[in-house]
Amino acid sequence: MNAEIITIGDELLIGQVVDTNSAWMAEQLNLIGIRVVQITSISDQRKHILTTLKEASSRADIILISGGLGPTRDDITKTTLCEYFNTKPVFNQDAYENIVRLFGSRGFVITPLNCAQAEVPESCTPLLNVNGTAPGMWFEKDGIIYVSMPGVPFEMKGLMTTHVLPRLSKLSSTGIVHRTILTQGVGESFLAAKIEDWETALPDYIKLAYLPQPGIVRLRLTASGPDRTLLEKEINERVTKLYGLIPEYIFGEGDETLEMVVSKLLKAHGFTLATAESCTGGYIAHLITSIPGSSAFFKGSVVAYANEIKEHLLGVTPDTLARYGAVSQETVFEMAAGIIRHLKVDCAVAVSGIAGPDGGTPDKQVGTTWISVLSPKGAETKMFTFGEHRGRNIRRAALAALDMLRKQLSI
Amino acid sequence: MNAEIITIGDELLIGQVVDTNSAWMAEQLNLIGIRVVQITSISDQRKHILTTLKEASSRADIILISGGLGPTRDDITKTTLCEYFNTKPVFNQDAYENIVRLFGSRGFVITPLNCAQAEVPESCTPLLNVNGTAPGMWFEKDGIIYVSMPGVPFEMKGLMTTHVLPRLSKLSSTGIVHRTILTQGVGESFLAAKIEDWETALPDYIKLAYLPQPGIVRLRLTASGPDRTLLEKEINERVTKLYGLIPEYIFGEGDETLEMVVSKLLKAHGFTLATAESCTGGYIAHLITSIPGSSAFFKGSVVAYANEIKEHLLGVTPDTLARYGAVSQETVFEMAAGIIRHLKVDCAVAVSGIAGPDGGTPDKQVGTTWISVLSPKGAETKMFTFGEHRGRNIRRAALAALDMLRKQLSI
Repeated sequence: MNAEIITIGDELLIGQVVDTNSAWMAEQLNLIGIRVVQITSISDQRKHILTTLKEASSRADIILISGGLGPTRDDITKTTLCEYFNTKPVFNQDAYENIVRLFGSRGFVITPLNCAQAEVPESCTPLLNVNGTAPGMWFEKDGIIYVSMPGVPFEMKGLMTTHVLPRLSKLSSTGIVHRTILTQGVGESFLAAKIEDWETALPDYIKLAYLPQPGIVRLRLTASGPDRTLLEKEINERVTKLYGLIPEYIFGEGDETLEMVVSKLLKAHGFTLATAESCTGGYIAHLITSIPGSSAFFKGSVVAYANEIKEHLLGVTPDTLARYGAVSQETVFEMAAGIIRHLKVDCAVAVSGIAGPDGGTPDKQVGTTWISVLSPKGAETKMFTFGEHRGRNIRRAALAALDMLRKQLSI
Repeated sequence: MNAEIITIGDELLIGQVVDTNSAWMAEQLNLIGIRVVQITSISDQRKHILTTLKEASSRADIILISGGLGPTRDDITKTTLCEYFNTKPVFNQDAYENIVRLFGSRGFVITPLNCAQAEVPESCTPLLNVNGTAPGMWFEKDGIIYVSMPGVPFEMKGLMTTHVLPRLSKLSSTGIVHRTILTQGVGESFLAAKIEDWETALPDYIKLAYLPQPGIVRLRLTASGPDRTLLEKEINERVTKLYGLIPEYIFGEGDETLEMVVSKLLKAHGFTLATAESCTGGYIAHLITSIPGSSAFFKGSVVAYANEIKEHLLGVTPDTLARYGAVSQETVFEMAAGIIRHLKVDCAVAVSGIAGPDGGTPDKQVGTTWISVLSPKGAETKMFTFGEHRGRNIRRAALAALDMLRKQLSI
């Protein structure tokens, strides 16, 4: 089955908003075995909407439309859909009660403009949108499915998850099984070389996609076939082999982040953590504290940008700083030891490096970064050589530090 | 003039990549007075590319194409363009020399596959792409301009900035002048009410757009008309009036960030800064240290997540914590005073709040945040009530703290 996605509204065409909706919808459709052949963004113009629907219907079995369902006069999607499907708007009691509920809970008065949101085209199946006033609308015509949804991301996602995807996945006879393995600290091409034989041995019905992000490569396996149980068994066996091949690089699966994995390990061990950060400037602390409930194990951090802070708050000796410099094995180890002593924690992560663009020397180029990780399970101090881009160096140093801690706590 | 944007490649259709290129291109085109009527993403299929080009040519005067110019066999854009324009690929010396230069600097050997990148359709004007091997291609046919560029964002942006936008802006007879004013700490609707009369008085040829982001609203003024000098004069006068109306909310213009503005002020005064962060968990330090050269004025930070860190490293008294709690005027002031004392800096920013989702009480709901800012120019401690979303609360608290410092240093 082929699908097309149409987004309606000026925000995308003037570049005010990046279209994240379409990527999310496309990913969800692909996950249930539906191929997306085109994504189109158009403005709120009757004629353009009609032409686009007609063109899409010549290529796709499923057409998902988002946007243009607001209560104001410039939102003309509903009227235009009535024209396209040769039907008329009728009052819908469920949609009205949903609006009353939403407005009541916010203490607002319902205006005639809001009331009009409860009208839906007679020929569609309305889909309840608990997150907003505009209901989703499911049409079928000449064997093609059309679904219209609001453009507000969490309203669209709510409708997709609750109504649209479950209905669409029933239509597909093919079973689809996915599994995403997350790796850190290894480039895409190096990883590909490492698992080349394993990848070549994959059967035709299992596809592998490399999905790189700065510092992280996700490996997504997708199996399709009539027998779901068999697919799951097959994928599990392949993944087990993969874990055997590159155990040192895999930190998690699916939607996990490295900071989530580290947080779980700390909780499981009952360990507390603090960070001593120079070049990462508080970014590791920020990643950890972005996780709800992190105050249970994260005690705090000293961001020691200036050398005197390394001395006064972390107890790095002036002699060490003078002899080896701020970016050195000796200094970063003393930073880690110091934060454990001063903040009375079980585990410490310390980072000192040259994030750039300035500060590099012939001996220590921009990107040179020392990381020290201490915990009741071990102690390790390592040097990394990242690149020239400040933002990416900060991100990669933080991920490398978290991954060192993860490995130490996983033993 | 109307434009369409076509992106070619499977990454967008499987949802692997969010299409940020199109939003950027659309914004740039709008900035030079060219309206974008449609954005279309399609896969690397000959027939689909040909149909899409034909459909676009019926609506637009300018068609910008990105993607599908890689050296591998699945990239068929160039071949398909040759077919569409009824021309053939020919060797281009400039493109070849560019490839030799790029490969030489990286120490790579040029393969036949790379050599093929130096071939361009005979009927096009090649555009030099200094960032990659695939040249841009400018075609004109039946009064319509087609430009094909690689999909790699920095290659596309390089070609747009150096070649495409300067050429296109010469074609437009209308002068366009933009100015973007940045505000912090005020919601869109409240802001609109504040400047209602000013907005109503804007002439027809000056448009105002509200561009909201979490914590920040950008106001973009766009004037269009034949006389650029007159437009600039008119916009300057309107903006001067706007500064008079809402001086407390405006922190900068254009692409500035709040941390950039604060950094400039600190440098101008020759002041040093440190932060004492509880609920923001190092995020303010991260924002500041993301700026190149921030080590000149930023000394460090104490992220005091646990109360004992507030006592031991910041000198908050146990009595204050016991009597008023960690999220209080008294505690946050002592945090700010403590960081100034311990880190020997001129300016301090301290934040303590309940980021959520847990930790709220009937007295102090999730979102309650105290911020204290001390500097040689003043002292201020304030309470804010943000929302329920952890990530947004952290972001809004950091921006509010930076803005308090900005105001203090601007007096």
